[in-house]
Amino acid sequence: MVVLGFDPGLATLGYGVVEKIGSSVKLLEYGAVTTPPTMRFADRLLSIHAQSQELIRRVKPDAIALEELFFNTNITTGIAVAQARGALLVAIGEYTDQIYEFTPLQIKQTLTGYGRADKQQMQRMVKTILAMDKIPRPDDAADGLAVAICLANTSRASVEQFRI
Amino acid sequence: MVVLGFDPGLATLGYGVVEKIGSSVKLLEYGAVTTPPTMRFADRLLSIHAQSQELIRRVKPDAIALEELFFNTNITTGIAVAQARGALLVAIGEYTDQIYEFTPLQIKQTLTGYGRADKQQMQRMVKTILAMDKIPRPDDAADGLAVAICLANTSRASVEQFRI
Repeated sequence: MVVLGFDPGLATLGYGVVEKIGSSVKLLEYGAVTTPPTMRFADRLLSIHAQSQELIRRVKPDAIALEELFFNTNITTGIAVAQARGALLVAIGEYTDQIYEFTPLQIKQTLTGYGRADKQQMQRMVKTILAMDKIPRPDDAADGLAVAICLANTSRASVEQFRI
Repeated sequence: MVVLGFDPGLATLGYGVVEKIGSSVKLLEYGAVTTPPTMRFADRLLSIHAQSQELIRRVKPDAIALEELFFNTNITTGIAVAQARGALLVAIGEYTDQIYEFTPLQIKQTLTGYGRADKQQMQRMVKTILAMDKIPRPDDAADGLAVAICLANTSRASVEQFRI
């Protein structure tokens, strides 16, 4: 099963692709969809929709996972990121209805068994699980891989509750 | 010039269409795009994208106006509405780059000359400007008409600053 994970954003939208084979999870690819701040806001949303659509069609995932959105810092940035996530979800929905959402807490617990793991611990765990030589960059791509691994490692019995 | 105005929302997305002829503004139509709460969130965004796209293609506006999003009440609802607005903006951006955004304060000032006008005053003003028999319902449609009138009544000289 191929899983595509997204860490939604406006300037940088990280993604990671893994394949679950039996009980192991293998890295396929990772990266980021970006839009420049010089571009008009409406054009950035269009670009996110178009780039994500192209990525999804190329990767052909069996399921897609996203981080749930929380506003803990800047509310203006949060509104912009939420709109970008809406543009992304249109691209995803046009391809599949196998869409799953996890909170940062759920992702941390699934990957490290510890809900309060920090960013560095999470990145090292992604590197270890996927047997990578180094920590994936940018951070957003590492977050995209983390949510993809989270879905890949969620049991069939409990996965339905995370579907949106 | 035909102007389509939107009041973004997840369950109810109000819209209004007006035509500016010389210095007068004429009502063309109004209504609401709706999605049921029983539908999956990702499907609701897809439905908003599809319904808005159909509306825009039918109305063929020369320009589109939206209310700027503010979070003043429920933040969870706000995140959902912002994502719905992102789905709407993809549909808009696929049709035109003539997209304008106004704050509630700007809409109130343009329609009533008074930034602190309440909801009832605004609705009566929409009714008066468009020579309607009664106040348009639902409220979201009245808000859609208000933002459309706001763009129609913004001078060519100052409109560019509201473009997104």
